Amino acid sequence: MTQSTKDLDDLIDLMAKLPGLGPRSARRAVLQMVKKRALLMKPLAQTLSTVAETVRECLTCGNVGTSDTCDICKSPKRNTTELCVVEDVSDLWAMERAGVFKGRYHVLGGTLSALDAVGPDELRIPQLLRRVAEDDVQEVILALNATMDGQTTAHYIADQLAGVRVTSLAQGVPIGGELDYLDDGTITAAMKARKSL
Amino acid sequence: MTQSTKDLDDLIDLMAKLPGLGPRSARRAVLQMVKKRALLMKPLAQTLSTVAETVRECLTCGNVGTSDTCDICKSPKRNTTELCVVEDVSDLWAMERAGVFKGRYHVLGGTLSALDAVGPDELRIPQLLRRVAEDDVQEVILALNATMDGQTTAHYIADQLAGVRVTSLAQGVPIGGELDYLDDGTITAAMKARKSL
Repeated sequence: MTQSTKDLDDLIDLMAKLPGLGPRSARRAVLQMVKKRALLMKPLAQTLSTVAETVRECLTCGNVGTSDTCDICKSPKRNTTELCVVEDVSDLWAMERAGVFKGRYHVLGGTLSALDAVGPDELRIPQLLRRVAEDDVQEVILALNATMDGQTTAHYIADQLAGVRVTSLAQGVPIGGELDYLDDGTITAAMKARKSL
Repeated sequence: MTQSTKDLDDLIDLMAKLPGLGPRSARRAVLQMVKKRALLMKPLAQTLSTVAETVRECLTCGNVGTSDTCDICKSPKRNTTELCVVEDVSDLWAMERAGVFKGRYHVLGGTLSALDAVGPDELRIPQLLRRVAEDDVQEVILALNATMDGQTTAHYIADQLAGVRVTSLAQGVPIGGELDYLDDGTITAAMKARKSL
């Protein structure tokens, strides 16, 4: 390709690296942007440049934001006595969308994994222990994924946090879930944790 | 959401408007970009800004490029006597990837459609007729999609282009195609156009 279409090719190559997009859908996306230049491409270019310059990790909790302390850590409305531990920023966003938690967060950045040689120091676990020791945290809620690695990490953290109340999300039948489509593990967990009506 | 995460939210909303992405995959894409800031987000922001500023339609053929005359129309290596008519820029790109055609293109920008009230003047058909009349075009190859609207458009253009050789892409079994999975129309077309070995 010649110089003048090189930028277009570069754009397609970069877009194709995004999760969920391949070369074909990247081309479609770029053509769509070219068609909607004023409404889509220019605002996207502008916003992306701004975010690329300003985005950073919150030094306290690991959330993504545009300053050294994120909005949630800064907010005086959030309960400082409850700390919710999540694996990833996407999990934090999912919790926020549910809107059920009014405390603060701590993003680990992954899970312990013997296979991938991820130990406590590769995650933000030391920072978590320091936060709990130094701040007035009364309850640590472990909202880790219900995977093997997630649960291993949850048990490790619970062991380290003696003296503080440590809880984890309930396991059971998801709302709207049909028993016929659920795995055995979920049904077993729901059965063991059954409640009287 | 507060001001400082507004840019992130805007970015997610804009990404979600791209074809193939929804709110969920837009969030994943943005988090991926945040993680790969130097390798992915900054180059993407830079390239997108450049393209948004420079991209334009070729005044001759309707291809997308960064100058008023696209690389293909400018190239002295392309055969000027053959003109390939396609519906959309994505079709032109598909033809170029196949690398089988060495002439020039003409992008219609859609097909005639009675239902959507698209007539010849909504497409680049007048420009096509002018190009064929003024330039030294000896063959017009109609590479329109094998849809009802595509074929209607092909017949309309062929009618308008008396005196020039007008051809269209062959129809038949695609390479690697299994008969069992082909529709009746394709098999009928392939049967009618059968060739002696």
